[in-house]
This record gives sequence, structure tokens and C-alpha cells, in this order.
Amino acid sequence: MNSNNREEQKVSAAKFYGVGVGPGDPKLITLRAVEVLQEIEVIAIPKSKMERESIAWEIAKSHCPSGVRIMELEMPMTSDESILRAAWQSAADKIQDEMQKGNSVAFLTLGDPSLYSTYSYLLTILEPVLSPEQIETIPGITAMAAAAARVNWPLATGDEPLVILPGIEGLEEYEKYPNLVLMKVSRNLPEVLKRTQTTGAQAVLATRVGQAGENIRVLDAQEELEKVDYLSLVLLKQK
Amino acid sequence: MNSNNREEQKVSAAKFYGVGVGPGDPKLITLRAVEVLQEIEVIAIPKSKMERESIAWEIAKSHCPSGVRIMELEMPMTSDESILRAAWQSAADKIQDEMQKGNSVAFLTLGDPSLYSTYSYLLTILEPVLSPEQIETIPGITAMAAAAARVNWPLATGDEPLVILPGIEGLEEYEKYPNLVLMKVSRNLPEVLKRTQTTGAQAVLATRVGQAGENIRVLDAQEELEKVDYLSLVLLKQK
Repeated sequence: MNSNNREEQKVSAAKFYGVGVGPGDPKLITLRAVEVLQEIEVIAIPKSKMERESIAWEIAKSHCPSGVRIMELEMPMTSDESILRAAWQSAADKIQDEMQKGNSVAFLTLGDPSLYSTYSYLLTILEPVLSPEQIETIPGITAMAAAAARVNWPLATGDEPLVILPGIEGLEEYEKYPNLVLMKVSRNLPEVLKRTQTTGAQAVLATRVGQAGENIRVLDAQEELEKVDYLSLVLLKQK
Repeated sequence: MNSNNREEQKVSAAKFYGVGVGPGDPKLITLRAVEVLQEIEVIAIPKSKMERESIAWEIAKSHCPSGVRIMELEMPMTSDESILRAAWQSAADKIQDEMQKGNSVAFLTLGDPSLYSTYSYLLTILEPVLSPEQIETIPGITAMAAAAARVNWPLATGDEPLVILPGIEGLEEYEKYPNLVLMKVSRNLPEVLKRTQTTGAQAVLATRVGQAGENIRVLDAQEELEKVDYLSLVLLKQK
């Protein structure tokens, strides 16, 4: 085999991983995620003003080789789709560049990569240009599952549906369902609390699940809470 | 400290764990679950005609001490609530007996213990009689997250809700939502397929995720499928 062939083989063996590192607790990562991190060449992390990314790296880094390279991907905090699309394309290009040099890239996601993650947008660009063998998504423990576990609450039982909402948009419509998860409450918490007073729902507020400053507790409907940490979710059970 | 005190201390140190062992792939278990299994005295497994329990044990056993004891808990396959309640009470009594001898018990759950698991029913009996420090729920990777990962599908993105249904009950009502997970389809698969022809939804059928005989694929709406394996779920995306 000449060196050209060897180079080609290395390129085609380069893989793109979406790695779910779990909610924050370093022990809530899977054996498969650890296995991949132990041999990875490049770690891709979306760069924004949020702390989510640095938490994901905190979890991952103890498993990574000492020489691992960090690739920061700019992700502007905007809802302007054309700006977002340009950012995703640029991120996907950088990942492909690395892969063409024969380096495997692991994109880190706090929680699970299939649930409300930038990874899904990168895949829409990368899936058509990579072979199926070059992509591996590694599921992760979600913050909602970890929060439910911490207070020993079922997310759902029996024949009940579970409805997961990324925010509080349309909350009133969904209140007829027995189990709700509101993924990002933050500044909307006072409104959520007000709704529980109306509906009589029980609510668990979970902030920084498995991280420093974790706070998970059943809310008193009479509490007055203002804006909470960005990394907060609410579990609601209608009576 | 006399031996009586020592005995009491051992009893109060006995713990009850709900361990999510993930969907089937032995590598999709968390480091925390492995840590608990490595030191456990008693493994509790619900006994029924389903294979779920033996799969959970297959995943767990490589991590357990060689002398670990298996406690089988009878769980009748019935919807008669009085029979079920009696079975849960009997199971909870057996677990408490072990804990009173100073033995920690790990109840295994395929997937996540907070989602449609017998563990939730046991907790309603055991939580009032144990101290909070004696209970630990360890979240697990769900079959739906693993299925989505295998086909690189997002479960949900952006501001879309995700609705999880334990079966197909009331499916038509939920079809207005963009992302649906039907946890147990089995004999209802032909009806689900028929609905996708009506609504134009894309469907992924996932059978035995991460287990021998795994089959995960995007369905062709024109396919004719009869009853599938009990361990099947469907991911639906409305167009």
C-alpha cells in the first residue's frame, strides 16, 4: 500500500460523532460516550454566551486524550434563520475540513443530541455528504430524566402521555395532559407558577441538574419566584 | 460500638436503587449505574412472560459481583388494579425484608426508571417507609433516544413539542403535533401505518433497539406489516 492509499483510508475512517454527555453529573455519561472520547482527535463545541458548552467540556475532558484539540464553533444567539443557517454551514465546513485531514470529530451535547440540539442542524448538512458509517449519534441522559430521578418522580406511568415543550409557548393548550415537561423556563417561571395556582398542578423546579448549584424541589404554588437560572426546567403533574 | 449498634448501622445504610440499564446495548449504561451494580447485594427483577427483564439482567450481570443474589418479583400481566396493587405490595415487602437484613437492593429497569416503569409503583409504597437517603433513582437511556440516534433523527428541534404516548390510544388527537413517539406498537402497527398514509407522516419503526435482532428503519407508507415484536416503538414526524 503506498502512502496515498494509506492517506485515503485514514480519511474515509474519520468519523463524526454526536456525543450526549448527559445532564451535568459526570457519572451520568454512558460507557459508549467514554469509549469514543478516549480516542477522539477533535472536540467540537458550539461557542456562545451560555455556559452549557463549558459544562459539556467539563464532563468530557477527564476522558479525552491529553493532546485533544478543541474546535470552537460560533453559534450566534439569534432567531434570524439566515444568520443561523450560515453559522451551521460554516461549522459543518470546519468539521469536514478536519475529517478530510483524517481526524475524527466529536460534537458535544449536554443532555441528549436528538432533543433540541444544534447537532440536529449540523446533521442536515453533514448527513448528505458523509457515508452512513461516518456518523454515530450517542444518546445521552436528559436533564428531565435526571431531575425526575433526583426527586423520585415518574415522568409518566400507565397509559398517560408525556408532553415535552421547549418553552411555555401555548402552555394553556397542553395543560389538559397529565404530564408536562417545560425545558426552558427561566424568565417565564412566574407565569408557570401562576398557571399552577389556576390548574392545581404539582410542579418540580430543577435548576442545574447534576451540576454545582443544583436545586431540585417541589414548588409551593404560593411561592413568589422571579427569573431563575437559564439551565432550569419544570416538571408538571396535573391533578 | 457493640454489635447491635453495628447491625443497626448496616440496616440504615441499606439502600434501594432504581437502576436504568438503558435500551439494550450494554454500552448505553451510565457510569453511575455500573458503580452501583458493582457493589450491590441483591438484584430485583420483575418476573413476567416478557423478555424485558432478562434483557435488563443480561446488561447488568457483567458488572455485578459473582455472588449477587437475584430476587424475582411476580408481576401478573393484568389490568386488574387490585391484583396489581397486591403484587406491588408483595414486591415492596420482599425488598424491605432484604433491606432490614442490611442488604441493598437494585431494581433493574430497561430504559429509564421514570418512564412507564413498574419501579414508579414500587416507589409509591417504599418512599413513605424509607428515608430519602435510602432511595436512589439512576436515570437510563430510553429506547426512543437510542432509536433516534441510530437513524440520526431528531426527536424534536426548535420550538416544537415532543409527545410520547405509551400506545396508540387517542392517536388521531395527537397527530396535530409534529413529533410523536409511540412506545408500544406491536399488534397496532397496521393501524399506525394506515394513519401515516392519511396524514403523510414519516415513520421510523424501531424493534429491539441495541439488542440481537435490532431493526431500525424509515417505513414506506405502502408497506404491509403485520404484528411486530413486543419491544417495538415508532417515531412519527408530521410533515
